[in-house]
Amino acid sequence: MSTRTLYELAGADPDRRFSPYCWRTRFALAHKGLDADCVPWRMTDKDAIAFSGQGKVPVLVDGETVVSDSWQIALHLEKTYPDAPSLFGGDGGMPAVRFINAWADSVVMPGVARLVIADIPRHMADRDVDYFRQTREQRFGAPLETVCANRDQDVEAFRQSLLPIRMTLRSAPFLGGDTPHYADYTVFSAFQWARCISDFVLLTADDPVAAWADRMLAAFDGMASKVPGYRIAA
Amino acid sequence: MSTRTLYELAGADPDRRFSPYCWRTRFALAHKGLDADCVPWRMTDKDAIAFSGQGKVPVLVDGETVVSDSWQIALHLEKTYPDAPSLFGGDGGMPAVRFINAWADSVVMPGVARLVIADIPRHMADRDVDYFRQTREQRFGAPLETVCANRDQDVEAFRQSLLPIRMTLRSAPFLGGDTPHYADYTVFSAFQWARCISDFVLLTADDPVAAWADRMLAAFDGMASKVPGYRIAA
Repeated sequence: MSTRTLYELAGADPDRRFSPYCWRTRFALAHKGLDADCVPWRMTDKDAIAFSGQGKVPVLVDGETVVSDSWQIALHLEKTYPDAPSLFGGDGGMPAVRFINAWADSVVMPGVARLVIADIPRHMADRDVDYFRQTREQRFGAPLETVCANRDQDVEAFRQSLLPIRMTLRSAPFLGGDTPHYADYTVFSAFQWARCISDFVLLTADDPVAAWADRMLAAFDGMASKVPGYRIAA
Repeated sequence: MSTRTLYELAGADPDRRFSPYCWRTRFALAHKGLDADCVPWRMTDKDAIAFSGQGKVPVLVDGETVVSDSWQIALHLEKTYPDAPSLFGGDGGMPAVRFINAWADSVVMPGVARLVIADIPRHMADRDVDYFRQTREQRFGAPLETVCANRDQDVEAFRQSLLPIRMTLRSAPFLGGDTPHYADYTVFSAFQWARCISDFVLLTADDPVAAWADRMLAAFDGMASKVPGYRIAA
């Protein structure tokens, strides 16, 4: 047993860990070389994480400390383990990575959602399905199937929105440079989310973003490739 | 006279320095505490910068070294003046700022162009107007006036595209954190471009991005506010 516990969203298959926010934390822990017991959690199991004072995962229990919210967890890990490799490219690197985290939240995540969210219920634990559909359909103001109805066309705009990644990859294999850092983790986790719950193909095989996604799947001994999933590119 | 010379695009009024790429370099020099003789240059004066091996500004002559392209100049300044404040938040901070530079190039700059580019010819030196119109209309595949024809509607999508800035500013006054760095300079320079050549209002006064733009105008003793220009927000 580790001194750390990470509560992660899981599907009907407990190995299907599909939350993009939990993946951000998984990568951050791996980057810092820290282990954790990764506990499967379902959306309706609010009681199981009530100790965190809120109802969403990831929740990281790190010794005596409880932290929720993937960004707050990243800040916690950076501060608590300063001798492990920096998540942000060093002391002054955090603000620019915070911008990339905001870009992932406001551009990449909504873009992926419109392509795959209708495929989530079929992979969820039965007891989560109604809750998920109700909360998300309220957020989108439409049935999930309607949100994804034009995905064969919408995917083009999504691919275009990735241009800043593509431009950055002209100079280095990762957003973090020669090696990945939290900028890669926060953006890639949106692709990993889709990979875990949808057979819809996000990227063309010749897209440099697809090659980067392959590198991210291979990182940390293939960590992200070891959970059940589909293809990101074709 | 300084040991450095910066060739900057100027309008009919030689004080109207309106190139966003040149502003990136002006800010980078100021951040490093370096002076330079800023020489007004017009687009058709290719001979004047032929020594740089290409035909665009900014061109920085730094002692014996000639560097063109705003990003290459930033890298040059960071490497050449390591004891001055870092442009990127430290040694490992450059890659994440490179992403933000790519985002500025691929989202903010094209977004601003669609709103203000038709206003540029009236501020240019006479000898530049035909060249500018011809090269830009070829790039856009349309007359400049057509590019900007729907700007009263297009400005809404532009403002939405700034959400990652807005989210980042919830945590700190600058993209660089407590103080600005190159991420702020590269993004703000697009707003400064518009400010120099168009009375079209980019931002609403209550937008946190407008408050940030005011802070950028005030930075370095009001450097960016001292050239002829219009309002960014109203």
